[in-house]
Amino acid sequence: MRGLTRCIDAALDEDIGSGDITTDAIIAESLAAAGVVRVKEDAVVAGLPVAEQVFHRVDPGIRMTCSVHDGDRVRKGTIIARVSGRASSILIAERTALNFLMRMSGIATVTRRYLQELRGTGVVLLDTRKTAPGLRMTDKYAVRAGGGTNHRFGLFDGILIKDNHIKAAGSVASAVRSIRGVRPYQKIEIEVKNKEELREAIRAGADIVLLDNMDPGMLKESLSIARGKILTEVSGNITLENIRAVAGAGPDFISTGAITHSAKAIDISMKLTNLYKKERP
Amino acid sequence: MRGLTRCIDAALDEDIGSGDITTDAIIAESLAAAGVVRVKEDAVVAGLPVAEQVFHRVDPGIRMTCSVHDGDRVRKGTIIARVSGRASSILIAERTALNFLMRMSGIATVTRRYLQELRGTGVVLLDTRKTAPGLRMTDKYAVRAGGGTNHRFGLFDGILIKDNHIKAAGSVASAVRSIRGVRPYQKIEIEVKNKEELREAIRAGADIVLLDNMDPGMLKESLSIARGKILTEVSGNITLENIRAVAGAGPDFISTGAITHSAKAIDISMKLTNLYKKERP
Amino acid sequence: MRGLTRCIDAALDEDIGSGDITTDAIIAESLAAAGVVRVKEDAVVAGLPVAEQVFHRVDPGIRMTCSVHDGDRVRKGTIIARVSGRASSILIAERTALNFLMRMSGIATVTRRYLQELRGTGVVLLDTRKTAPGLRMTDKYAVRAGGGTNHRFGLFDGILIKDNHIKAAGSVASAVRSIRGVRPYQKIEIEVKNKEELREAIRAGADIVLLDNMDPGMLKESLSIARGKILTEVSGNITLENIRAVAGAGPDFISTGAITHSAKAIDISMKLTNLYKKERP
Amino acid sequence: MRGLTRCIDAALDEDIGSGDITTDAIIAESLAAAGVVRVKEDAVVAGLPVAEQVFHRVDPGIRMTCSVHDGDRVRKGTIIARVSGRASSILIAERTALNFLMRMSGIATVTRRYLQELRGTGVVLLDTRKTAPGLRMTDKYAVRAGGGTNHRFGLFDGILIKDNHIKAAGSVASAVRSIRGVRPYQKIEIEVKNKEELREAIRAGADIVLLDNMDPGMLKESLSIARGKILTEVSGNITLENIRAVAGAGPDFISTGAITHSAKAIDISMKLTNLYKKERP
Amino acid sequence: MRGLTRCIDAALDEDIGSGDITTDAIIAESLAAAGVVRVKEDAVVAGLPVAEQVFHRVDPGIRMTCSVHDGDRVRKGTIIARVSGRASSILIAERTALNFLMRMSGIATVTRRYLQELRGTGVVLLDTRKTAPGLRMTDKYAVRAGGGTNHRFGLFDGILIKDNHIKAAGSVASAVRSIRGVRPYQKIEIEVKNKEELREAIRAGADIVLLDNMDPGMLKESLSIARGKILTEVSGNITLENIRAVAGAGPDFISTGAITHSAKAIDISMKLTNLYKKERP
Amino acid sequence: MRGLTRCIDAALDEDIGSGDITTDAIIAESLAAAGVVRVKEDAVVAGLPVAEQVFHRVDPGIRMTCSVHDGDRVRKGTIIARVSGRASSILIAERTALNFLMRMSGIATVTRRYLQELRGTGVVLLDTRKTAPGLRMTDKYAVRAGGGTNHRFGLFDGILIKDNHIKAAGSVASAVRSIRGVRPYQKIEIEVKNKEELREAIRAGADIVLLDNMDPGMLKESLSIARGKILTEVSGNITLENIRAVAGAGPDFISTGAITHSAKAIDISMKLTNLYKKERP
Repeated sequence: MRGLTRCIDAALDEDIGSGDITTDAIIAESLAAAGVVRVKEDAVVAGLPVAEQVFHRVDPGIRMTCSVHDGDRVRKGTIIARVSGRASSILIAERTALNFLMRMSGIATVTRRYLQELRGTGVVLLDTRKTAPGLRMTDKYAVRAGGGTNHRFGLFDGILIKDNHIKAAGSVASAVRSIRGVRPYQKIEIEVKNKEELREAIRAGADIVLLDNMDPGMLKESLSIARGKILTEVSGNITLENIRAVAGAGPDFISTGAITHSAKAIDISMKLTNLYKKERP
Repeated sequence: MRGLTRCIDAALDEDIGSGDITTDAIIAESLAAAGVVRVKEDAVVAGLPVAEQVFHRVDPGIRMTCSVHDGDRVRKGTIIARVSGRASSILIAERTALNFLMRMSGIATVTRRYLQELRGTGVVLLDTRKTAPGLRMTDKYAVRAGGGTNHRFGLFDGILIKDNHIKAAGSVASAVRSIRGVRPYQKIEIEVKNKEELREAIRAGADIVLLDNMDPGMLKESLSIARGKILTEVSGNITLENIRAVAGAGPDFISTGAITHSAKAIDISMKLTNLYKKERP
Repeated sequence: MRGLTRCIDAALDEDIGSGDITTDAIIAESLAAAGVVRVKEDAVVAGLPVAEQVFHRVDPGIRMTCSVHDGDRVRKGTIIARVSGRASSILIAERTALNFLMRMSGIATVTRRYLQELRGTGVVLLDTRKTAPGLRMTDKYAVRAGGGTNHRFGLFDGILIKDNHIKAAGSVASAVRSIRGVRPYQKIEIEVKNKEELREAIRAGADIVLLDNMDPGMLKESLSIARGKILTEVSGNITLENIRAVAGAGPDFISTGAITHSAKAIDISMKLTNLYKKERP
Repeated sequence: MRGLTRCIDAALDEDIGSGDITTDAIIAESLAAAGVVRVKEDAVVAGLPVAEQVFHRVDPGIRMTCSVHDGDRVRKGTIIARVSGRASSILIAERTALNFLMRMSGIATVTRRYLQELRGTGVVLLDTRKTAPGLRMTDKYAVRAGGGTNHRFGLFDGILIKDNHIKAAGSVASAVRSIRGVRPYQKIEIEVKNKEELREAIRAGADIVLLDNMDPGMLKESLSIARGKILTEVSGNITLENIRAVAGAGPDFISTGAITHSAKAIDISMKLTNLYKKERP
Repeated sequence: MRGLTRCIDAALDEDIGSGDITTDAIIAESLAAAGVVRVKEDAVVAGLPVAEQVFHRVDPGIRMTCSVHDGDRVRKGTIIARVSGRASSILIAERTALNFLMRMSGIATVTRRYLQELRGTGVVLLDTRKTAPGLRMTDKYAVRAGGGTNHRFGLFDGILIKDNHIKAAGSVASAVRSIRGVRPYQKIEIEVKNKEELREAIRAGADIVLLDNMDPGMLKESLSIARGKILTEVSGNITLENIRAVAGAGPDFISTGAITHSAKAIDISMKLTNLYKKERP
Repeated sequence: MRGLTRCIDAALDEDIGSGDITTDAIIAESLAAAGVVRVKEDAVVAGLPVAEQVFHRVDPGIRMTCSVHDGDRVRKGTIIARVSGRASSILIAERTALNFLMRMSGIATVTRRYLQELRGTGVVLLDTRKTAPGLRMTDKYAVRAGGGTNHRFGLFDGILIKDNHIKAAGSVASAVRSIRGVRPYQKIEIEVKNKEELREAIRAGADIVLLDNMDPGMLKESLSIARGKILTEVSGNITLENIRAVAGAGPDFISTGAITHSAKAIDISMKLTNLYKKERP
């Protein structure tokens, strides 16, 4: 994951600043430690390679060995990794490493829950750009670890024409036309708010329509118009309770921001099991 | 908030990258717009000055006028700010500005809920270092907006001796002693796991004890030993359901990571109400 | 153009370093100047807003007024901009501003020449990723100013399956399939080296084929197979001499790296016409 | 080359951005590859260590072995380097590495051509500050690889008094005098536009004169005045056709921007010859 | 020391810039060297690990072996370290490494002198924020190496209420009260200028008082009021001549800016003792 | 001064970090203040524009009006500047602004003292590269403010051949020759340790010799050999006591590191004279 170093360093900088005053004062440089990282509740794990990089940015001498992989489902109490190295370095890196692991596992876990609801429907679950500011890359990685599919990463790698773009362009057709001229090699997704716009989008040759916040009746009708003519994405107030019903209407994709912006963190802790002078045999 | 610019730029960079391909292709530079920012559910608002800075980093010509203040409680549907300026700039900044607002208002809202449970108890609600990586500053700001009190910002500005520090130092007393020598002008907080350590901490002259994950019986006993002799902070599995009971045992502080690591985002949206050529009279 | 500031600062840093020792020693701070920027040969101009930003990064007090727009064709000797402000600032910024203008106008001019050859053919001229390292954004902007169309900006915003990807995937079909699963909302371009691969790409549902370095016979045949079934891009040894012939074969796109990696710079110079004490009446 | 890392990272960032979506989707992490880098036309090679650093910044595990050195003349078809390592890393770094190699070899090749024209004249060929923005260091390195000599790197490490400096100072003599006072340990070069200024420069004790854009008659006369009294640099519209004639007039140095700002890139390509599972025996 | 890399890189950048033109021209890459670092006057050494990092940032292949430790007192002429590796790298890093060593040893040496004056008094010597801009971390480290104790690192990790804060708050009591509410877990230091303010500070529950620039009479009286009730720090015009007398009045801490802002550098030099082709046996 | 912003930001970052906890808690945003900056001892002032930039980086709304210029000699007690603006911003910037002013004025003051000793001798006083790490630019600026002359800024902008370079090159002559080939437009300074090397340097056509740490006898002899043939710089153990005697021997330049690495800071303080609500009439 390119760019991850900057993201990790920002997190370490804000936590460590001018130094860990407690550890610096008490823990001798010569002290080594070994510890375990354990989940405190059932979870789908995500972020192990990120946590490992956190430890390495603090001290390349720390060793982290994982006993599970990102995307694995684990039971409460499972040891997911072991860490060893200089005690002071481990203590300094601990919180930042866990903060990544807890957030990313939280996202992976809730994503997996949504996917269970979609089982057998053939509908693809997409994330959105509603990620924590600065954490787009790790949030989207966690969605993949949970089994979800990433929508565009940002404004730069995917076209999504929204209602203000249509208003500014004058019509669905002219919006589609003007972007195809300058981005001929990219798919065009367009948000439509009624059947007229949907039909216009199909005629204009758009590739995907976004049906956002439509009531069930209009959604059903729209999907039946679109079927076979254009790909369809549905979004808006998707919950664990209603996603299976929405999927039943037969869209190609359902997208939801909740799996990233409101995922409950998984409780994960680190415990040192050993503390010893480095030069011991 | 010093350092905020870096944090905002990182968020904008990951979203905008090499450019907003949809807006660049469709929205003319000469188009201006006005819009409203609205909360879609009851909330305590936080992050308005951050959102304003997001808009300004993208385009210093955008104007944002707030109709409420951070920390205000608002009803579903309330317009909390109005935005005007170049249409393309507003569209490009929109998602990042909302992502900050939604997360920060989520934190402020849940913090306020916890505080309602503490009403009348005199107990102070503290946050922790369990914030989203890279967002320590805005997460902690949102806690304050919700009425909470910030614990240390990082490892650099507060002493907290944990069980591994004690183990490394040999005893509670020697841990306290060795840090007081090098940091004589800072308060010393120490985590204790039983009554013996608590008594030793008091004798050693520590300023605050942290009682983490104690069962109700031991917690009550510990607090009665500590009363009048040392400040007390309680943490571990604090929920909206149990916080009032914990407060009843009489600690000085209760701290919880859930208000930052697991806050549900508040649904907030922006809608352009106007789209016009900039040179209109 | 987001990111442009970093690019301009890097250019100014490498030229100015610890300071302009000649100007610092001779030109008084109180001296003001006015000057003209003139092209010394026929050209399509590009880079005026970049040059303006260069001057502003050195000194926000410099004023630059353009008499033409990017994309305009101008005759040798035309004054394209006037600059005024602190004399020392103008002298310090001059070389970097001109270096951008000369390179970008060179790219726009040669792009326009290629487009003249394509007149009436309906074929779209694309650039490539063969830009000067660090100048992707301004090189591609200059292509647009010359009338060309940008292919993908980088590896991040467009799919292009090349022969090694096919080899690794096992077949054209499996390469297309595996990427469609994780990037369902993006067009798939694939490079094919013969008619079998071309037919397989069509069957697999790829969106665009790249026909690179094919001999005229095979190219013609391939294009007739593809027509109406898939978009086609031709590349490889495209020159001003042969591009019209290639276009005659009827592809949708022709791409060439030469317009960016080997464009001859346009000779552009700045001359101060006035040098006076800033406080003159 | 200090500062090179920043320059390489900027180039990689603009190409890779949030990730290589094609390679990430198709090429397994466990796949290894070996390949060859080959020039497609006669050339003087430059940039091999830069290309190697590009590969290493992407993945320290990539190995690049060069079969020629920078500055070597090679025939069309020559393999100049072999690369091996993780297949995905090689594919991700390929374009950026080649972009450096192609540009730098282009500069070295044209520089060598100019030098061939100067053979036997004793005149030194200098470059200028007319380099691609952000590439001063690699452009000047390529000039050296081609056999040329670097003029000053920027405004910070060499004095060059131009006509506006003279105008501001009042006279050649006062310009020379005022800079010698503050930079007593540096050589003073001054651009003169006629014989009077040349004589004044000699009297004032300048070290080098720059004779820019003089017609052949005046140039010859100026050089004969200067001979033995001051070093001479000639510039302005130097081409492969006229450089030998200019050299015949007997200057110490001839400088030209064309070798950096308008060098045609050398066609260089990379081909993977092998693709295999990393754990193969 | 986190953040040290940035500080070292800034120092190397300003010294090396676009390259060491002397060394690049004369010293072959294949030349190796060995040298010694020697103090030219009696000193307390500080900065050896910093110097080592300077060498490593320039060239990870340089080896530095220290024969003393930071904080050691050494005699004039002592060899404190040996350096070996590529000759050009050593020469390029030399000045920056020595500049750190000379400054830091200067600070450690004068700190030790002050501490000798305090011997037997039980008074703790504190530094201040009066450090060289950008060198807070290394200046404070050098104070510790000399045996001194660090006061707060910056505005972020310690409370110090000064007279303007009191004025703004209205009174000593209200200043103390308002900060305790938001920073309940940090010690409160307050500067008082007379006995009334001192008594108010004690009543308000402040933890430490700063007595700045008091005349000996008032200082003595103030200290006797404070004794046993509040910790005391004395500052203002502390010199080697008067510090013992001030200590005699019985404060807990004495702080002085002179040990950082006006420390005389220790003369330290590096001499290459060996220069040889790297491939020698 | 290009690059100054980075230097100022580093200084502010290390002092402010995550925020001024005292000021944030006590000083209302709406409070304005006015204050005076005063020297507490006789001094030559330097750094006023730097201090102004420090205030502006913290808050562009702060206004600083200077009553003297850099380089002015002022008496103890003189008010050198007035500051007004938001009270919290002034308090936050104060220490960093003063740290620059105190150091820079210290350097300017001692430089002026040395120059007084040189009065009438015609000898030029040079600084060295022995500056505080990271402060090359402001230290050298302060030397100029004091009336001194800057030697090279770093390794990049001046040639200085030292004894190890000579050893590596084989002889004085070959060192001079090999650098002249690649840097023909720069002066060559060379350190010589005896009369033989001096004569060789003259013969080889070097421009300046550095006579370092020579005893008075050899120095006198060397200077009389050099006179009229080559410029001469003397260094090594220059003090206020001996500089006039050294100058008497008749070198062109004397250089000393003490004016930068060991300058005593000038005591300068800021006092707020006014504290009021910003909206006062």
